[in-house]
Amino acid sequence: MNNNLVIQTDFGKSDGAVNAMYGVAVSVDPSIRIYDLTHDIPPYNVWDASYRLFQSISYWPEGTVFISVVDPGVGTKRLSVVAKTKEGHYIVTPNNGTLTHIHHSIGIKEVRVIDEKINRLPRSGESYTFHGRDVYAFTGARLASGVISFEEVGPEVDTAKIIALPLTKAETNEGRITGNIDILDVRFGNLWTNIDRELFHEADFNYGDVLEVSIENNTQKKYKNSIVFGRSFADTRLGEPLLFVNSLDKLGVAINQGSFAKAYQIETGSDWKITIQKVIK
Amino acid sequence: MNNNLVIQTDFGKSDGAVNAMYGVAVSVDPSIRIYDLTHDIPPYNVWDASYRLFQSISYWPEGTVFISVVDPGVGTKRLSVVAKTKEGHYIVTPNNGTLTHIHHSIGIKEVRVIDEKINRLPRSGESYTFHGRDVYAFTGARLASGVISFEEVGPEVDTAKIIALPLTKAETNEGRITGNIDILDVRFGNLWTNIDRELFHEADFNYGDVLEVSIENNTQKKYKNSIVFGRSFADTRLGEPLLFVNSLDKLGVAINQGSFAKAYQIETGSDWKITIQKVIK
Amino acid sequence: MNNNLVIQTDFGKSDGAVNAMYGVAVSVDPSIRIYDLTHDIPPYNVWDASYRLFQSISYWPEGTVFISVVDPGVGTKRLSVVAKTKEGHYIVTPNNGTLTHIHHSIGIKEVRVIDEKINRLPRSGESYTFHGRDVYAFTGARLASGVISFEEVGPEVDTAKIIALPLTKAETNEGRITGNIDILDVRFGNLWTNIDRELFHEADFNYGDVLEVSIENNTQKKYKNSIVFGRSFADTRLGEPLLFVNSLDKLGVAINQGSFAKAYQIETGSDWKITIQKVIK
Repeated sequence: MNNNLVIQTDFGKSDGAVNAMYGVAVSVDPSIRIYDLTHDIPPYNVWDASYRLFQSISYWPEGTVFISVVDPGVGTKRLSVVAKTKEGHYIVTPNNGTLTHIHHSIGIKEVRVIDEKINRLPRSGESYTFHGRDVYAFTGARLASGVISFEEVGPEVDTAKIIALPLTKAETNEGRITGNIDILDVRFGNLWTNIDRELFHEADFNYGDVLEVSIENNTQKKYKNSIVFGRSFADTRLGEPLLFVNSLDKLGVAINQGSFAKAYQIETGSDWKITIQKVIK
Repeated sequence: MNNNLVIQTDFGKSDGAVNAMYGVAVSVDPSIRIYDLTHDIPPYNVWDASYRLFQSISYWPEGTVFISVVDPGVGTKRLSVVAKTKEGHYIVTPNNGTLTHIHHSIGIKEVRVIDEKINRLPRSGESYTFHGRDVYAFTGARLASGVISFEEVGPEVDTAKIIALPLTKAETNEGRITGNIDILDVRFGNLWTNIDRELFHEADFNYGDVLEVSIENNTQKKYKNSIVFGRSFADTRLGEPLLFVNSLDKLGVAINQGSFAKAYQIETGSDWKITIQKVIK
Repeated sequence: MNNNLVIQTDFGKSDGAVNAMYGVAVSVDPSIRIYDLTHDIPPYNVWDASYRLFQSISYWPEGTVFISVVDPGVGTKRLSVVAKTKEGHYIVTPNNGTLTHIHHSIGIKEVRVIDEKINRLPRSGESYTFHGRDVYAFTGARLASGVISFEEVGPEVDTAKIIALPLTKAETNEGRITGNIDILDVRFGNLWTNIDRELFHEADFNYGDVLEVSIENNTQKKYKNSIVFGRSFADTRLGEPLLFVNSLDKLGVAINQGSFAKAYQIETGSDWKITIQKVIK
């Protein structure tokens, strides 16, 4: 471990909850280095929590400990675990789907269940509603600072026990790619798809190509038009849509300095399908 | 002191004000460790500032220095003070009610008035509107990093001089508890009352009991229905209300994965009364 | 350099983008000290980015490295630069106007263009859309931690190459000052003008004077009334407007505990003019 602790929650930062987690971590080791991932995960949205971890984890040094507390099942028998990824990061989280994207795209080497008899803040009282502070911050800080080893977290469980949300796979077929809208680049309203750049190469789509894009959910078609595949936003005019490779090497859909999501009321999830093909002349 | 500095304001983080405070603190001692409590205290809301300090302070190591700048009276003759709590934390704040909950629930051992002739940022110019940066960040950082001792803050004043907002006390009487709604768990819309868990025990309310809850303000009854007292959210179904012990060992009122506050338009303060009693069969 | 890194973006903190930048910086040097300026710059708003840097930079120790990523031109031929200010701070930014206020009010001593062949995150792949992570965070962290010297950023360019947005100058003429509304103190709705305190002295306006203030944009007059020039908010009653010297030693316009900007629908920019003169009796 390297004494770095990265924290993600759906608590927001408008009250004292996240700060109490910091305090617990600093009490474990004053030299610990705490960083926020985000505390704005939409309440109870495990999918987004999973995606945001995946979006940032690879940029951190090996041994960094992540805490993710998006925990609609707090107080149920859902397990509290620490997962070690194949890249050497640790994630302290309820086993409720938060590990989905990392399990699928990076791989998880080993999972241990937190033994709360040992790894629970002393004097944390009779409240059963704030495991983020009493269990996750405490355990994460002890792991990050080397007070406990990964083995001392608790007993190992089979990685097959990891709860994963259903993921759909993007596919290419006869020059047509189908995928789905995984998530938004919230602030800018760009769509991020599950289509890897490699699939674009496979389909022989190249920078400068004008491609036919359609987006639909279960009940209706939301968008159908041709869009240029640009190397960057600079390849389009203000207000023009473009296809681009995003910062995770996946296909994104944007309006240059506008919000594609708002313009066409696009949301995210496995039932939001996108199809891309060459324009038939 | 332990070189930890925790900052709370009502400034928001959308401009450069909080960052200027960081810069002042880092200029005092580059090794200082700065943490945010929250900067989203509703503007001028001293009550919330007081509560958020109370919510998190006990989870920090002894010697941690807190700065709270919610200061509707900046520029008046209100005193700028540093309070030392009975648990060994320090709070740098205007003496305007921000110490209310800590004074009442934890206790304050000693208060000193900031001597601004010594403890004011050099070259802070003619502005009288940003004491957060020029006085509080500067003094807090000097105290946290050991540049000055607590005594060097300025002259001691009697703790009787601490300004406190009126607090009402929850009471139990013939199997009926009355209290008020102190604050919201903003993000989730849960109500946090001033009713301690012990009072629930005293009234012989136990996990699993169905209790009659009514909430009213000065002018109208806002809620009256029976709610189960659950050990955790897991004891209710989605969308069902519950009574629970919150992370401060006080009674909370929630809707499982919904917002109780929004559902019934509940606000906070001493005129928001809650009554809880056994359901009469 | 002093190992301090201050980051500003228009990314918001609701997703993993800012955290990926932290991770890149920590990977460069685990002992680096990262601070947020703000991540709430309105998307693509280079003017606000420039102002927020100016608002806070002088409060940081010499050698502190700032990163500002408000970059509507990402992927165009706009240069990525590091500027050294006359006060000894460094700013890593696209050369797109972000340096406007610092160039004008503090002065820039030297500018170097980032040589992306050297100063680009290894394995940052084919994405051309996230220079904040791949170029700016990487370069800023290497500079702050001393991995590279300022010279190793890349070749020097003439400071005349700095892109600056048009700035208007406040003026006094026959006892009347004209200026413009530069920016808002967002959270409180105060107006911050470009009128220096010295200009007020020149015009012989003193604390306690009642002054005639009018505010207009290109198309209409938005406000015209007399306001007292107060030493602090304490000099007015609740809800009363006042003129005051803000934390940057410039004239501000406020409503005590209200929002002047909302009350009179005032916005910011060089076409929002303010005129102040003595009340003619």
